[in-house]
Amino acid sequence: MGPLKAILFDTFGTVVDWRGSVAREIEKLAQQKGYSDVDGDAFARAWRAGYQPGMEEVRSGRRPWTSIDVIHRERLNSIVSEFGLDDLSEGERDDLNLAWHRLDPWPDSIPGLRRLHRSYILGPLSNGSTQLLINIAKRVWIPWDVIGSSDAFRSFKPQAEMYLGAVSMLGMKPSEVMMAAAHNDDLRHAQSHGMPTAFICRPYEYGVDQVSDFEAAGNWDFSVDGIDELADRLGL
Amino acid sequence: MGPLKAILFDTFGTVVDWRGSVAREIEKLAQQKGYSDVDGDAFARAWRAGYQPGMEEVRSGRRPWTSIDVIHRERLNSIVSEFGLDDLSEGERDDLNLAWHRLDPWPDSIPGLRRLHRSYILGPLSNGSTQLLINIAKRVWIPWDVIGSSDAFRSFKPQAEMYLGAVSMLGMKPSEVMMAAAHNDDLRHAQSHGMPTAFICRPYEYGVDQVSDFEAAGNWDFSVDGIDELADRLGL
Repeated sequence: MGPLKAILFDTFGTVVDWRGSVAREIEKLAQQKGYSDVDGDAFARAWRAGYQPGMEEVRSGRRPWTSIDVIHRERLNSIVSEFGLDDLSEGERDDLNLAWHRLDPWPDSIPGLRRLHRSYILGPLSNGSTQLLINIAKRVWIPWDVIGSSDAFRSFKPQAEMYLGAVSMLGMKPSEVMMAAAHNDDLRHAQSHGMPTAFICRPYEYGVDQVSDFEAAGNWDFSVDGIDELADRLGL
Repeated sequence: MGPLKAILFDTFGTVVDWRGSVAREIEKLAQQKGYSDVDGDAFARAWRAGYQPGMEEVRSGRRPWTSIDVIHRERLNSIVSEFGLDDLSEGERDDLNLAWHRLDPWPDSIPGLRRLHRSYILGPLSNGSTQLLINIAKRVWIPWDVIGSSDAFRSFKPQAEMYLGAVSMLGMKPSEVMMAAAHNDDLRHAQSHGMPTAFICRPYEYGVDQVSDFEAAGNWDFSVDGIDELADRLGL
């Protein structure tokens, strides 16, 4: 590894706990509406299960560019009846869709990012939309210097446009921009474009649905259990 | 004016003092190199005089998309001999060109932006490059939530793509995104696209070259003498 200037973070699962956050939102809503027995964790996992298939329609070219916010909203429509939530109004569904803009960080994320921010340019490199990534960051004071979103590059990871677009946006060489993610596949693609890599282990991301990424599965430059540990390893 | 969600700031002249900052850089370099009698202020103004003509080549379509960093670098080459600096090496010129990435804020900018940041999404909307805007912000801790650069939209203000692109990137209505600038012309264009406007008076921006923008010259929503005063006016 040469001198490092920037670190880009996958966001869903790596920086924020989407499963716990979405589960809390749906359980709060269910309580307000007087619904009983809504399994927030199952709801969050069911919602997330539409994420890759939704993006794949776009990545494959079968569907023109579509924001992740639209993909989330469509998936929401398709799962509400399974959870007895059919009578949520359009407005309530629109608001619930913004649960993805209000995701809480893992406990080590903000302390670690604050330390890294002293010495490196930081940003998300995420399939989230610009709006989603701004809203997540602003709510919990994530110190991003720049937002690397799917709409900025009109593509979704692991498409090359995301990695190469972000490196180009920063005006740096790929070797100067590290990708940090809880997903080995994301790192594999980043590495194939010449970027250094940091695996942040998040074995609880998917809960009972988690089938992979329990550990580093590649020759990554760093493999750590949290973003604070990455700051330790980088001497901050 | 309806509810405001975001404020986008012109950067050169509005948030940062390019003239004083560039003058200090060139005078420091001249001292290091043993050159005497380099007028830093005149140098900064001569450099800046290539800014609008350089962008106009691109805006007019006579030249394909070109980053402001390249336009700055070319202009530097064309003025060095006038100031007796011909023997600066390519590397020295490359470094000097980054003076535009190290511009100091006006004294009220950071305190004002910190206050506004509590309640609004903030970003530059500038003809600077993404790299330039990140570097300026990071050096002096400007609390931007997002970077609105010319390379993001591959156009230069006052082209409509800049204003409309930024509003679209934020997923907001134009009425929710205020443009703040020291230049009446910038505000005129923003207003024509439905954005609210704030004039920040910077009568010393161009020094002896200043010929306009000594005062608000339009029906702007706010007209203030500094960013801290804008925070006052917005009740922060």
